[in-house]
Amino acid sequence: MDNTAFFKLSYGLFVVTAHEGDKDNGCITNTVVQQTITPNRISVTINKNNYTHDMIKRTGVFNVSVLSEKAKFETFKHWGFQSGKDVDKTVGITYFRLENGVIYIVDGVNAVMCAKVEQEVDLGTHTMFIAEVTDAFSTEEDSSATYAFYHKNIKPAPQPAKKKGWICTVCGYIYEGEVLPEDFICPTCKHPASDFKRIE
Amino acid sequence: MDNTAFFKLSYGLFVVTAHEGDKDNGCITNTVVQQTITPNRISVTINKNNYTHDMIKRTGVFNVSVLSEKAKFETFKHWGFQSGKDVDKTVGITYFRLENGVIYIVDGVNAVMCAKVEQEVDLGTHTMFIAEVTDAFSTEEDSSATYAFYHKNIKPAPQPAKKKGWICTVCGYIYEGEVLPEDFICPTCKHPASDFKRIE
Repeated sequence: MDNTAFFKLSYGLFVVTAHEGDKDNGCITNTVVQQTITPNRISVTINKNNYTHDMIKRTGVFNVSVLSEKAKFETFKHWGFQSGKDVDKTVGITYFRLENGVIYIVDGVNAVMCAKVEQEVDLGTHTMFIAEVTDAFSTEEDSSATYAFYHKNIKPAPQPAKKKGWICTVCGYIYEGEVLPEDFICPTCKHPASDFKRIE
Repeated sequence: MDNTAFFKLSYGLFVVTAHEGDKDNGCITNTVVQQTITPNRISVTINKNNYTHDMIKRTGVFNVSVLSEKAKFETFKHWGFQSGKDVDKTVGITYFRLENGVIYIVDGVNAVMCAKVEQEVDLGTHTMFIAEVTDAFSTEEDSSATYAFYHKNIKPAPQPAKKKGWICTVCGYIYEGEVLPEDFICPTCKHPASDFKRIE
Protein backbone atom coordinates (compact mmCIF):
# COMPACT_ATOMS: atom_id res chain seq x y z
CA MET A 1 0.00 0.00 0.00
CA ASP A 2 1.41 3.36 -1.06
CA ASN A 3 0.06 5.89 1.45
CA THR A 4 0.89 8.86 -0.80
CA ALA A 5 -2.26 7.97 -2.78
CA PHE A 6 -4.41 9.06 0.16
CA PHE A 7 -2.83 12.53 0.11
CA LYS A 8 -4.37 12.93 -3.36
CA LEU A 9 -7.90 12.95 -1.95
CA SER A 10 -9.24 16.51 -1.64
CA TYR A 11 -11.12 17.80 1.39
CA GLY A 12 -12.49 20.98 2.88
CA LEU A 13 -11.89 21.93 6.52
CA PHE A 14 -14.58 22.55 9.08
CA VAL A 15 -15.25 23.34 12.72
CA VAL A 16 -18.03 21.03 13.88
CA THR A 17 -19.73 22.36 17.02
CA ALA A 18 -22.12 20.78 19.52
CA HIS A 19 -23.99 21.89 22.63
CA GLU A 20 -25.03 19.90 25.67
CA GLY A 21 -26.34 21.32 28.95
CA ASP A 22 -24.13 24.35 29.67
CA LYS A 23 -21.30 23.09 27.50
CA ASP A 24 -20.33 24.29 24.03
CA ASN A 25 -17.60 22.48 22.22
CA GLY A 26 -16.22 21.81 18.75
CA CYS A 27 -13.46 20.18 16.78
CA ILE A 28 -11.75 20.41 13.40
CA THR A 29 -12.63 17.87 10.74
CA ASN A 30 -12.06 17.41 7.00
CA THR A 31 -14.91 14.96 6.43
CA VAL A 32 -18.07 17.00 5.79
CA VAL A 33 -19.69 15.84 2.54
CA GLN A 34 -23.09 16.51 1.00
CA GLN A 35 -24.52 13.05 0.50
CA THR A 36 -27.87 13.78 -1.15
CA ILE A 37 -29.72 16.84 -2.42
CA THR A 38 -33.24 15.43 -2.00
CA PRO A 39 -33.34 15.71 0.98
CA ASN A 40 -30.37 17.93 1.84
CA ARG A 41 -28.21 15.58 3.82
CA ILE A 42 -24.56 15.70 4.91
CA SER A 43 -22.20 13.30 6.62
CA VAL A 44 -19.35 13.97 9.01
CA THR A 45 -16.95 11.40 10.43
CA ILE A 46 -15.49 12.10 13.87
CA ASN A 47 -12.84 10.33 15.92
CA LYS A 48 -14.31 8.66 19.00
CA ASN A 49 -11.54 10.23 21.14
CA ASN A 50 -13.00 13.68 20.51
CA TYR A 51 -15.31 15.06 23.17
CA THR A 52 -17.42 16.63 20.40
CA HIS A 53 -18.07 13.09 19.14
CA ASP A 54 -19.71 12.11 22.43
CA MET A 55 -21.75 15.31 22.59
CA ILE A 56 -23.15 14.77 19.06
CA LYS A 57 -23.86 11.13 19.85
CA ARG A 58 -25.88 12.15 22.91
CA THR A 59 -27.66 15.22 21.48
CA GLY A 60 -28.02 14.35 17.77
CA VAL A 61 -27.47 17.98 16.76
CA PHE A 62 -24.44 19.83 15.37
CA ASN A 63 -23.42 22.84 13.30
CA VAL A 64 -20.74 23.01 10.62
CA SER A 65 -18.67 26.19 10.19
CA VAL A 66 -16.93 25.96 6.80
CA LEU A 67 -13.37 27.33 7.09
CA SER A 68 -12.24 29.75 4.40
CA GLU A 69 -8.78 30.61 3.10
CA LYS A 70 -8.82 33.51 5.59
CA ALA A 71 -8.82 31.12 8.57
CA LYS A 72 -5.74 31.57 10.76
CA PHE A 73 -3.52 28.79 12.10
CA GLU A 74 -4.70 29.86 15.59
CA THR A 75 -8.20 28.71 14.64
CA PHE A 76 -6.89 25.24 13.79
CA LYS A 77 -4.88 25.12 17.01
CA HIS A 78 -7.80 26.37 19.07
CA TRP A 79 -10.38 23.88 17.77
CA GLY A 80 -8.09 21.06 16.75
CA PHE A 81 -5.16 20.82 19.13
CA GLN A 82 -6.83 20.92 22.55
CA SER A 83 -9.71 18.98 24.04
CA GLY A 84 -13.05 20.26 25.28
CA LYS A 85 -12.54 17.85 28.17
CA ASP A 86 -9.81 20.21 29.45
CA VAL A 87 -10.80 23.69 28.30
CA ASP A 88 -13.82 25.82 27.46
CA LYS A 89 -13.26 26.40 23.74
CA THR A 90 -15.66 29.36 23.59
CA VAL A 91 -13.17 31.55 25.50
CA GLY A 92 -11.52 34.14 23.23
CA ILE A 93 -13.70 33.25 20.21
CA THR A 94 -16.35 35.25 18.32
CA TYR A 95 -19.37 33.03 17.91
CA PHE A 96 -23.09 33.18 17.27
CA ARG A 97 -25.75 30.88 18.70
CA LEU A 98 -28.48 29.65 16.34
CA GLU A 99 -32.03 28.48 17.05
CA ASN A 100 -30.92 24.87 17.42
CA GLY A 101 -28.93 25.97 20.51
CA VAL A 102 -25.56 25.31 18.88
CA ILE A 103 -22.95 27.98 18.13
CA TYR A 104 -21.08 28.61 14.91
CA ILE A 105 -17.80 30.47 14.67
CA VAL A 106 -17.56 33.76 12.81
CA ASP A 107 -13.91 34.46 11.89
CA GLY A 108 -12.33 32.68 8.93
CA VAL A 109 -15.64 31.02 8.03
CA ASN A 110 -17.65 31.39 4.79
CA ALA A 111 -20.74 29.23 5.37
CA VAL A 112 -22.70 27.47 8.09
CA MET A 113 -24.91 24.38 8.19
CA CYS A 114 -27.19 23.17 10.97
CA ALA A 115 -27.67 19.42 11.07
CA LYS A 116 -29.80 16.82 12.82
CA VAL A 117 -28.44 13.27 12.98
CA GLU A 118 -30.54 10.67 11.13
CA GLN A 119 -28.20 7.71 11.27
CA GLU A 120 -24.85 6.66 12.75
CA VAL A 121 -22.35 4.30 11.14
CA ASP A 122 -19.83 2.73 13.53
CA LEU A 123 -16.42 2.69 11.83
CA GLY A 124 -14.32 1.41 14.74
CA THR A 125 -12.05 4.35 15.56
CA HIS A 126 -14.63 6.83 14.23
CA THR A 127 -18.38 7.33 13.95
CA MET A 128 -19.94 8.64 10.75
CA PHE A 129 -22.96 10.83 11.48
CA ILE A 130 -25.42 11.11 8.58
CA ALA A 131 -27.59 14.15 9.15
CA GLU A 132 -30.43 16.16 7.67
CA VAL A 133 -29.48 19.79 7.02
CA THR A 134 -32.08 21.90 8.85
CA ASP A 135 -30.60 25.28 7.88
CA ALA A 136 -27.71 26.56 5.76
CA PHE A 137 -26.36 29.96 4.79
CA SER A 138 -23.26 31.64 3.41
CA THR A 139 -21.52 34.25 5.57
CA GLU A 140 -18.62 35.40 3.35
CA GLU A 141 -17.59 35.18 -0.30
CA ASP A 142 -14.03 33.99 0.48
CA SER A 143 -12.91 30.71 -1.08
CA SER A 144 -13.08 27.63 1.10
CA ALA A 145 -9.85 26.30 2.58
CA THR A 146 -8.93 22.88 1.25
CA TYR A 147 -6.66 20.53 3.19
CA ALA A 148 -4.02 21.09 0.48
CA PHE A 149 -4.32 24.88 0.97
CA TYR A 150 -3.94 24.44 4.74
CA HIS A 151 -0.72 22.46 4.35
CA LYS A 152 0.71 24.92 1.82
CA ASN A 153 -0.44 28.28 3.18
CA ILE A 154 -1.80 28.12 6.73
CA LYS A 155 0.31 25.61 8.65
CA PRO A 156 3.64 27.22 9.68
CA ALA A 157 6.75 25.79 8.01
CA PRO A 158 8.46 23.30 10.33
CA GLN A 159 11.21 24.84 12.46
CA PRO A 160 14.69 23.30 12.46
CA ALA A 161 14.19 20.48 14.92
CA LYS A 162 16.04 20.75 18.21
CA LYS A 163 14.44 17.57 19.48
CA LYS A 164 15.08 14.06 18.24
CA GLY A 165 12.33 11.54 17.75
CA TRP A 166 9.19 11.49 15.63
CA ILE A 167 7.07 14.43 14.42
CA CYS A 168 3.36 14.32 13.65
CA THR A 169 3.04 15.59 10.06
CA VAL A 170 -0.51 16.77 10.75
CA CYS A 171 -0.02 19.03 13.79
CA GLY A 172 3.72 19.13 14.55
CA TYR A 173 3.62 17.29 17.89
CA ILE A 174 6.99 15.70 18.67
CA TYR A 175 7.36 12.28 20.26
CA GLU A 176 10.77 12.18 21.91
CA GLY A 177 11.92 8.60 21.73
CA GLU A 178 13.91 6.22 19.60
CA VAL A 179 11.01 3.91 18.71
CA LEU A 180 7.49 5.16 18.03
CA PRO A 181 5.01 2.51 19.20
CA GLU A 182 2.95 1.12 16.29
CA ASP A 183 -0.32 1.88 18.07
CA PHE A 184 0.75 5.41 19.05
CA ILE A 185 -1.98 8.05 18.75
CA CYS A 186 -0.95 11.71 18.61
CA PRO A 187 -2.14 13.22 21.92
CA THR A 188 -2.69 16.57 20.20
CA CYS A 189 -4.58 15.76 16.99
CA LYS A 190 -5.44 12.05 17.41
CA HIS A 191 -3.70 10.90 14.20
CA PRO A 192 -1.98 7.49 14.25
CA ALA A 193 1.69 6.45 14.06
CA SER A 194 1.51 6.26 10.24
CA ASP A 195 1.24 10.08 10.17
CA PHE A 196 4.58 10.53 12.03
CA LYS A 197 7.98 10.87 10.42
CA ARG A 198 11.43 10.52 11.94
CA ILE A 199 13.41 13.65 12.87
CA GLU A 200 17.14 13.51 13.56
CA MET B 1 -32.26 27.31 3.17
CA ASP B 2 -29.55 29.17 1.27
CA ASN B 3 -28.16 26.70 -1.26
CA THR B 4 -25.01 28.76 -1.86
CA ALA B 5 -23.71 27.33 1.43
CA PHE B 6 -23.40 23.89 -0.19
CA PHE B 7 -21.12 25.31 -2.90
CA LYS B 8 -18.64 26.07 -0.09
CA LEU B 9 -18.02 22.38 0.58
CA SER B 10 -14.79 21.21 -1.09
CA TYR B 11 -14.45 17.96 -3.02
CA GLY B 12 -12.07 16.07 -5.22
CA LEU B 13 -13.19 14.47 -8.50
CA PHE B 14 -12.90 10.81 -9.34
CA VAL B 15 -13.69 8.16 -11.94
CA VAL B 16 -15.12 5.17 -10.09
CA THR B 17 -14.87 2.00 -12.19
CA ALA B 18 -16.46 -1.44 -11.85
CA HIS B 19 -16.32 -4.74 -13.73
CA GLU B 20 -18.98 -7.41 -14.14
CA GLY B 21 -18.85 -10.34 -16.56
CA ASP B 22 -17.51 -8.88 -19.81
CA LYS B 23 -18.55 -5.35 -18.92
CA ASP B 24 -16.30 -2.51 -17.75
CA ASN B 25 -17.92 0.71 -16.73
CA GLY B 26 -17.37 3.82 -14.65
CA CYS B 27 -18.77 7.17 -13.64
CA ILE B 28 -17.65 10.54 -12.30
CA THR B 29 -18.17 11.30 -8.63
CA ASN B 30 -17.03 13.92 -6.12
CA THR B 31 -17.74 11.87 -3.00
CA VAL B 32 -14.67 9.73 -2.31
CA VAL B 33 -13.54 10.26 1.29
CA GLN B 34 -11.06 8.41 3.50
CA GLN B 35 -13.15 7.44 6.50
CA THR B 36 -10.60 5.70 8.74
CA ILE B 37 -6.87 5.02 8.66
CA THR B 38 -6.95 1.86 10.81
CA PRO B 39 -8.05 0.07 8.70
CA ASN B 40 -7.71 2.04 5.46
CA ARG B 41 -11.29 2.59 4.50
CA ILE B 42 -13.00 4.93 2.03
CA SER B 43 -16.58 5.78 1.19
CA VAL B 44 -18.16 6.73 -2.12
CA THR B 45 -21.75 7.78 -2.68
CA ILE B 46 -23.28 6.99 -6.07
CA ASN B 47 -26.61 7.90 -7.64
CA LYS B 48 -28.86 4.87 -8.05
CA ASN B 49 -29.55 5.92 -11.67
CA ASN B 50 -25.92 5.19 -12.59
CA TYR B 51 -25.20 1.81 -14.11
CA THR B 52 -21.90 1.75 -12.20
CA HIS B 53 -23.97 1.85 -9.00
CA ASP B 54 -25.70 -1.42 -9.88
CA MET B 55 -22.44 -3.09 -10.91
CA ILE B 56 -20.77 -2.18 -7.59
CA LYS B 57 -23.84 -3.32 -5.67
CA ARG B 58 -23.69 -6.71 -7.39
CA THR B 59 -19.90 -7.25 -7.39
CA GLY B 60 -18.77 -5.40 -4.23
CA VAL B 61 -15.56 -4.26 -5.91
CA PHE B 62 -14.49 -0.94 -7.46
CA ASN B 63 -11.46 1.18 -8.27
CA VAL B 64 -11.05 4.92 -7.81
CA SER B 65 -9.00 6.95 -10.32
CA VAL B 66 -8.24 10.32 -8.71
CA LEU B 67 -8.53 13.08 -11.34
CA SER B 68 -5.73 15.64 -11.46
CA GLU B 69 -5.66 19.23 -12.67
CA LYS B 70 -4.43 17.84 -16.01
CA ALA B 71 -7.74 16.03 -16.63
CA LYS B 72 -9.49 17.27 -19.77
CA PHE B 73 -13.16 18.22 -20.07
CA GLU B 74 -13.48 15.28 -22.50
CA THR B 75 -12.72 12.94 -19.59
CA PHE B 76 -15.62 14.39 -17.60
CA LYS B 77 -17.92 14.17 -20.62
CA HIS B 78 -16.81 10.62 -21.38
CA TRP B 79 -17.31 9.21 -17.88
CA GLY B 80 -19.96 11.60 -16.60
CA PHE B 81 -22.30 12.57 -19.41
CA GLN B 82 -23.18 9.23 -21.00
CA SER B 83 -24.43 5.97 -19.56
CA GLY B 84 -22.76 2.57 -19.59
CA LYS B 85 -26.24 1.24 -20.38
CA ASP B 86 -25.88 2.79 -23.85
CA VAL B 87 -22.17 2.75 -24.64
CA ASP B 88 -18.96 0.84 -23.93
CA LYS B 89 -16.98 3.47 -22.03
CA THR B 90 -13.65 1.69 -22.55
CA VAL B 91 -13.64 2.66 -26.25
CA GLY B 92 -11.08 5.40 -26.98
CA ILE B 93 -9.63 5.37 -23.44
CA THR B 94 -6.19 4.37 -22.11
CA TYR B 95 -6.74 2.08 -19.17
CA PHE B 96 -4.99 -0.58 -17.10
CA ARG B 97 -6.57 -3.64 -15.50
CA LEU B 98 -5.52 -4.51 -11.96
CA GLU B 99 -5.52 -7.84 -10.11
CA ASN B 100 -9.03 -7.26 -8.78
CA GLY B 101 -10.25 -7.41 -12.41
CA VAL B 102 -11.25 -3.74 -12.48
CA ILE B 103 -9.66 -1.11 -14.73
CA TYR B 104 -8.34 2.30 -13.79
CA ILE B 105 -7.89 5.16 -16.21
CA VAL B 106 -4.45 6.53 -16.99
CA ASP B 107 -4.75 10.05 -18.45
CA GLY B 108 -5.40 13.01 -16.15
CA VAL B 109 -5.15 10.80 -13.07
CA ASN B 110 -2.65 11.06 -10.19
CA ALA B 111 -3.57 8.15 -7.89
CA VAL B 112 -5.56 4.93 -7.80
CA MET B 113 -7.32 2.97 -5.06
CA CYS B 114 -8.77 -0.53 -5.16
CA ALA B 115 -11.70 -1.09 -2.84
CA LYS B 116 -13.86 -3.91 -1.53
CA VAL B 117 -17.31 -2.99 -0.20
CA GLU B 118 -17.82 -3.70 3.52
CA GLN B 119 -21.12 -1.96 4.07
CA GLU B 120 -23.86 -0.12 2.15
CA VAL B 121 -25.92 2.78 3.45
CA ASP B 122 -29.20 3.40 1.61
CA LEU B 123 -29.66 7.16 1.20
CA GLY B 124 -32.80 7.13 -0.97
CA THR B 125 -31.59 8.59 -4.27
CA HIS B 126 -28.04 7.32 -3.64
CA THR B 127 -26.16 4.46 -2.01
CA MET B 128 -23.07 5.08 0.08
CA PHE B 129 -20.55 2.27 -0.29
CA ILE B 130 -18.11 1.97 2.63
CA ALA B 131 -15.13 -0.05 1.48
CA GLU B 132 -11.79 -1.44 2.60
CA VAL B 133 -8.88 -0.19 0.49
CA THR B 134 -7.08 -3.30 -0.76
CA ASP B 135 -4.42 -1.44 -2.75
CA ALA B 136 -3.43 2.17 -3.41
CA PHE B 137 -0.70 3.94 -5.34
CA SER B 138 0.19 7.31 -6.83
CA THR B 139 0.71 7.55 -10.59
CA GLU B 140 1.63 11.22 -11.10
CA GLU B 141 2.76 14.18 -8.99
CA ASP B 142 0.17 16.58 -10.47
CA SER B 143 -2.19 18.30 -8.02
CA SER B 144 -5.63 16.82 -7.62
CA ALA B 145 -8.55 18.54 -9.33
CA THR B 146 -11.05 19.96 -6.87
CA TYR B 147 -14.66 20.62 -7.85
CA ALA B 148 -13.90 24.35 -7.57
CA PHE B 149 -10.94 23.93 -9.96
CA TYR B 150 -13.16 22.03 -12.42
CA HIS B 151 -15.75 24.82 -12.48
CA LYS B 152 -13.10 27.52 -12.88
CA ASN B 153 -10.57 25.89 -15.21
CA ILE B 154 -11.86 22.73 -16.87
CA LYS B 155 -15.55 23.26 -17.68
CA PRO B 156 -15.91 25.41 -20.83
CA ALA B 157 -17.43 28.86 -20.31
CA PRO B 158 -21.13 28.80 -21.19
CA GLN B 159 -21.86 29.82 -24.79
CA PRO B 160 -24.40 32.56 -25.49
CA ALA B 161 -27.64 30.62 -25.30
CA LYS B 162 -29.58 30.21 -28.50
CA LYS B 163 -32.17 28.06 -26.79
CA LYS B 164 -34.69 29.19 -24.21
CA GLY B 165 -35.53 27.17 -21.15
CA TRP B 166 -33.46 25.87 -18.25
CA ILE B 167 -29.75 24.98 -18.18
CA CYS B 168 -28.13 22.42 -15.88
CA THR B 169 -25.35 24.31 -14.07
CA VAL B 170 -23.41 21.07 -13.58
CA CYS B 171 -23.14 19.76 -17.16
CA GLY B 172 -24.77 22.34 -19.44
CA TYR B 173 -27.76 20.23 -20.56
CA ILE B 174 -30.63 22.46 -21.72
CA TYR B 175 -34.27 21.72 -20.97
CA GLU B 176 -36.34 23.51 -23.58
CA GLY B 177 -39.58 24.42 -21.90
CA GLU B 178 -41.26 27.20 -20.00
CA VAL B 179 -41.68 25.32 -16.73
CA LEU B 180 -39.08 22.90 -15.37
CA PRO B 181 -40.87 20.11 -13.46
CA GLU B 182 -39.91 20.13 -9.76
CA ASP B 183 -38.92 16.46 -9.88
CA PHE B 184 -36.90 16.87 -13.09
CA ILE B 185 -33.63 14.91 -13.17
CA CYS B 186 -30.96 15.95 -15.69
CA PRO B 187 -30.82 13.08 -18.23
CA THR B 188 -27.10 13.76 -18.78
CA CYS B 189 -25.61 14.09 -15.29
CA LYS B 190 -28.51 13.03 -13.01
CA HIS B 191 -28.61 16.28 -11.00
CA PRO B 192 -32.03 17.53 -9.83
CA ALA B 193 -34.10 20.58 -10.80
CA SER B 194 -32.46 22.66 -8.05
CA ASP B 195 -29.23 22.62 -10.10
CA PHE B 196 -30.92 24.24 -13.14
CA LYS B 197 -31.14 27.95 -13.83
CA ARG B 198 -33.38 29.85 -16.25
CA ILE B 199 -31.98 30.99 -19.60
CA GLU B 200 -33.76 33.60 -21.71
